[in-house]
Amino acid sequence: MDLAQHIRSILDFPVPGINFRDITPLLENPTAFRYAVDQLVAATRSWGPVDLVAAPEARGFCFAIPVAMQWNAGFVPIRKPGKLPYKTLSKSYALEYGMNTIQMHQDAIQPGKRVLLVDDLLATGGTINACRQLIEENGGICVGAAFVMELAGLKGRHLLETPNVAALVRYEGA
Amino acid sequence: MDLAQHIRSILDFPVPGINFRDITPLLENPTAFRYAVDQLVAATRSWGPVDLVAAPEARGFCFAIPVAMQWNAGFVPIRKPGKLPYKTLSKSYALEYGMNTIQMHQDAIQPGKRVLLVDDLLATGGTINACRQLIEENGGICVGAAFVMELAGLKGRHLLETPNVAALVRYEGA
Repeated sequence: MDLAQHIRSILDFPVPGINFRDITPLLENPTAFRYAVDQLVAATRSWGPVDLVAAPEARGFCFAIPVAMQWNAGFVPIRKPGKLPYKTLSKSYALEYGMNTIQMHQDAIQPGKRVLLVDDLLATGGTINACRQLIEENGGICVGAAFVMELAGLKGRHLLETPNVAALVRYEGA
Repeated sequence: MDLAQHIRSILDFPVPGINFRDITPLLENPTAFRYAVDQLVAATRSWGPVDLVAAPEARGFCFAIPVAMQWNAGFVPIRKPGKLPYKTLSKSYALEYGMNTIQMHQDAIQPGKRVLLVDDLLATGGTINACRQLIEENGGICVGAAFVMELAGLKGRHLLETPNVAALVRYEGA
């Protein structure tokens, strides 16, 4: 299956000049969605064992949760400020367009737990590097990061500080 | 399994007087998470067939996506304004605390498709009634709404305009 056929491009979203890769057609097609999840699990199989799968909201959740279920791992949500109700750790970082802050519950990861990061898109890698820092400040071990899509022109793969990287669909541009 | 043992209460979040039901311990426990998903599917089995499962971000996604996979249905995200990149339908409504607007892609549902709504919490029902309106404006048929938790004291069950309602954990208060 060619997953790229289930991803559409929306020019000038969210800001002029950005060619946004929209995964909602993929989510709406159960065969394609399941295939993407299976491929993410296959791509990360050799990185295991995996105790927990973590993802930034909200598109990351869509893939991380079924990947976590296939791994028989727990799911750790990483959210925007003010969303998680218990005590949190925070991290701010530069995004492809603008700045962002993310939070994780400070009791989400027991020391030594092996954590897989999953997100829809690898752009500059800023979000996932911040996620990895949150995992490690919580005492966890980040085993790698798996993405549905990669914007290869932004070279995020080379900037990522995770030990392993996988992406299912590669776009040459930015 | 008693799912309530995997849900913790955080007093005064997000505002004073609210006793927030935190499902992150449930998400982090793969056995409890899978059990909750299995119970949601079992509770909605007689409402089928289901073509699509829709949910408001972001906690709704956590349960809706594995439920969609068990139903072999597609997933339709319902999001805050500015998040969905294609043409959208919008709906504003009163929330338990404050106001909210949600959006759905206008091509997310083909006419006549049967859509199941899933969310973590039934409070006043405002969010899910707005979701149902978006589904019907898109030409879909809402078959019902399934929740992990219900705050029975808010009587949302009686205010919901969906043909079926199910909730796994009932809290008597608000």
